[in-house]
Amino acid sequence: MFKINDNYLKLPGSYLFSTIAKKVNEYQTANPEKDIIRLGIGDVTQPLAPSIIDALHGAVDEMAHAETFHGYAPDLGYEFLRNAIAKNDYTDRGADIEADEIFVSDGAKCDSGNIQEIFAQDNKIAVCDPVYPVYVDTNVMAGRTGTYDPKAETWSDVIYMPCTAENNFAPDFPDEVPDIIYLCFPNNPTGSTITKDQLQGWVDYANKNGAVIIYDAAYEAYISEDNVAHTIYECEGARTCAIELKSFSKNAGFTGVRLGYTVIPKDLKCGDVQLHSLWARRHGTKYNGAPYIVQKAGEAVYSEAGKAQLKEQVGYYMNNAKVIFEGLKDAGYTVSGGVNAPYIWLKTPDHMTSWEFFDHLLENANVVGTPGSGFGPSGEGYFRLTAFGSYENTVAAMERIKNM
Amino acid sequence: MFKINDNYLKLPGSYLFSTIAKKVNEYQTANPEKDIIRLGIGDVTQPLAPSIIDALHGAVDEMAHAETFHGYAPDLGYEFLRNAIAKNDYTDRGADIEADEIFVSDGAKCDSGNIQEIFAQDNKIAVCDPVYPVYVDTNVMAGRTGTYDPKAETWSDVIYMPCTAENNFAPDFPDEVPDIIYLCFPNNPTGSTITKDQLQGWVDYANKNGAVIIYDAAYEAYISEDNVAHTIYECEGARTCAIELKSFSKNAGFTGVRLGYTVIPKDLKCGDVQLHSLWARRHGTKYNGAPYIVQKAGEAVYSEAGKAQLKEQVGYYMNNAKVIFEGLKDAGYTVSGGVNAPYIWLKTPDHMTSWEFFDHLLENANVVGTPGSGFGPSGEGYFRLTAFGSYENTVAAMERIKNM
Repeated sequence: MFKINDNYLKLPGSYLFSTIAKKVNEYQTANPEKDIIRLGIGDVTQPLAPSIIDALHGAVDEMAHAETFHGYAPDLGYEFLRNAIAKNDYTDRGADIEADEIFVSDGAKCDSGNIQEIFAQDNKIAVCDPVYPVYVDTNVMAGRTGTYDPKAETWSDVIYMPCTAENNFAPDFPDEVPDIIYLCFPNNPTGSTITKDQLQGWVDYANKNGAVIIYDAAYEAYISEDNVAHTIYECEGARTCAIELKSFSKNAGFTGVRLGYTVIPKDLKCGDVQLHSLWARRHGTKYNGAPYIVQKAGEAVYSEAGKAQLKEQVGYYMNNAKVIFEGLKDAGYTVSGGVNAPYIWLKTPDHMTSWEFFDHLLENANVVGTPGSGFGPSGEGYFRLTAFGSYENTVAAMERIKNM
Repeated sequence: MFKINDNYLKLPGSYLFSTIAKKVNEYQTANPEKDIIRLGIGDVTQPLAPSIIDALHGAVDEMAHAETFHGYAPDLGYEFLRNAIAKNDYTDRGADIEADEIFVSDGAKCDSGNIQEIFAQDNKIAVCDPVYPVYVDTNVMAGRTGTYDPKAETWSDVIYMPCTAENNFAPDFPDEVPDIIYLCFPNNPTGSTITKDQLQGWVDYANKNGAVIIYDAAYEAYISEDNVAHTIYECEGARTCAIELKSFSKNAGFTGVRLGYTVIPKDLKCGDVQLHSLWARRHGTKYNGAPYIVQKAGEAVYSEAGKAQLKEQVGYYMNNAKVIFEGLKDAGYTVSGGVNAPYIWLKTPDHMTSWEFFDHLLENANVVGTPGSGFGPSGEGYFRLTAFGSYENTVAAMERIKNM
C-alpha cells in the first residue's frame, strides 16, 4: 500500500495568501455592494511596459514560422537573456558573476521553494522572523524542521532571527550556528533593509561558519539609498557562500508572465562538489525552461527603452509607498519600510492582534492587507500594506483609513 | 557546515539528452561541413498553429492595459482552461473528471519529476524498462531507489518491468507488488501501446494491491487505433488509484511554450487524506502558475479552429512516422511503434549496442537518434527515432540510412 509524505500533514493551516483570499471572498459575498481595495498580496497592477509588449509580439511571430520557431530551451536558459542579466545585474555593478552561473527559471517562488532539495535533510535552517512563508513551508515538506509548537507557532529545528522595531528589523547573528541562512533584502514583509556593510557582516559570518546564504533579492529594483547592496555579490567573499534568487515580478510586473533566475557561483562548494553542478542536474532533470517568448520579454527588460519605462513603473509604485507611509503617519500609526521596498509595515493600534486588525480594516475601511503574524510569531502586532495598487486606489485607501 | 543531498551524487552520468547533445556538438565541431539531421530528442519542428498564434497575440495585448492586465494566476490554473480540458479531454470521452481535479502546470516533465514529493520515502516504485529517465532519476534524487549496480544499470529498490519484443513491449505484472507504478502509454520510448482492456487490468491490479498509478499520457493525441484508451479514466476504478499527467508539447507543439496539467481525482486517498489536497498544497507553496498568455494559448488548443489545425499537425508528424517505419523496414530493419505514437523503435543490426549504433548512424548517415540503452537496460540493442522532424528531413534521413 502506498504511503504519503506525512510532512505535508504537519503544515498548519493553508498557505497564508490562500487564507486571505478566502476571507476576502466571504466578506465580498456577504457584502456585494462594498468596493474592496486590495493592498494585501504583493501582486502588481500596472500593465506591461511597451517595450516588453513589443518583444512578446515579436517572439510570438517567430513561433509562427518553422524557420524561427523555438522548441525546448537550453537547460540554463537562452544565452541572450543570461548575457543581459550577467552584464546589467552583475558586471555593471562590479559583481563578478558569469553568464553560465545564471539559471533562468519561471520565478523566484519556485526557485526559493526548490533550492532546498540540493541540501541534505539534516541541515539546520535559519530564517528571519517574520518571513516569506515559502522558505519554511518547503523545508517542512522536506522533513527538515522538526516538530511544530502550535502555541509558539515555531518549529523545533528552525532557528528564528527576530526582526522587530527593537533591532530596526535587521536580524542579529543567531546564538546557534545554522547551516543554511535565508535572507531577503530589501525585506518582504517588513519593507526594511540592511546596509551593504551589514550584509558584508553576514557574508563573513557564513564563510567563517561554513554556512550557505540563500539570498532573495526580489525587491532589489526598489532600493533608493546608496549604502544598500543591489546584489550580495557586491560583498567580498560572497562567491564562496551565497546563492542569489532574483525575480522579474516586481521590477517588470511579471507576476503573471513568470520569469526569474538563480545565481550559483562555481566557487560555492561542499568539499569538492560544486552546488552549481547539483542545481544544473536538478534543472536538467525536473525542469524544461521558461517559455521562449517569456525569455525574449526578459531580454527587453534590459533594453534602453525597457530600462527607462521600468524605472518609471517602479517610481509609480514607490510614489504609492510614500502615499501610504505619509498617510498612515498622519493617521497616527507607527510605520516603517517603504523607502527601499514596496512594502509598508505598521504597528497595529490599540494592542490589536494582526488578524484582529485585518478584520477591522476589511470591515471598516474595506481595505485588504496582510496580517504580520502570518509571516511568523515576531510579526504579531504588525501589518503589511503593499504599494502595488493603482495610485487612485492607494489614495482612496488612505482616505478610508484616516476616516476610520 | 552545510551538507549537500548526496543522493544527487549517486546518479550515473548526466541526463541522457544532455549527453547526446554533447556528442552531437563534438561531431559537428569536428565535421563542420556535415549536415546533421536530428531525429533524437523528441522536440517538435512545426510552427505553432494560427489559432494559437492569434490567442497569444490577443493575450499579449490584454497585458498591455491595466483593465485587462493579469497578475498572479489562480493556484490551480485559470478556470477557462480547466473547463476546456475537463470538457474536451474527459467529459466528451465519458471520463468522469471535474475541472477542480485538474492542476495546470508548465509541463509534464516538471509534474512527472515533482509528483513523487507527495509520497513517503519508503514507497517502492515500479517502472517499465526502457523508460523516460525522469521517473527514476527524480526518485534517485529523493533517496527512494537504494543502491546502483553499474554493471546491471539498475537500482536495488526499483522494480523493473521489461518491455521488449518478447512481450510485445507491454509490461507484465511484477512479481513483487510496488507502491507506485509509472506507466506511459502510448509509450516513450518504444512507441508501442497497450489496449484499453490491458490498461483496465493495471487499474484493477493497482486497486487490488493499494498501489497508485502515475499515468503519463503525453502522447495521447497520436492514438490512431480504436481499442486504445485516451485517458486512464476511461477505465473503471481509475479514480481511486490513478494520477494522470498530460502535456501540450506534442499535441500542440508547445515544447518551447510550456504547458501541461496533472489530474488527481478527489477519490484517490491514503486513509482519509486526499492526494489532491497534498498536490494542491505543493502547487500553492512551490509554484506560481503558468503564464496567463500561455494559458490563453492552451484554451485555443480546444477551439474548433485549433482542433482542426492541430489534427493536421499531428497528421503531419504521423506521416513522418510512416515514412520512417516503412523506410526502415525496406532497409531490412526490425521495427515497431509509430502507429499510435510519434516514436519508432528499431532493433540495432549486427548485434551492435545501442551506443555503437548511435555512433554508426551519426558518422555514416549524419542522423541523430536516441540509444535505447539510455532508457534502461532492456533498451539495450534498440534505438529510437522520432517523427518530429520536418517531412523533408525525415525523407532525407531514410534515404541516407538505406544507402548506408
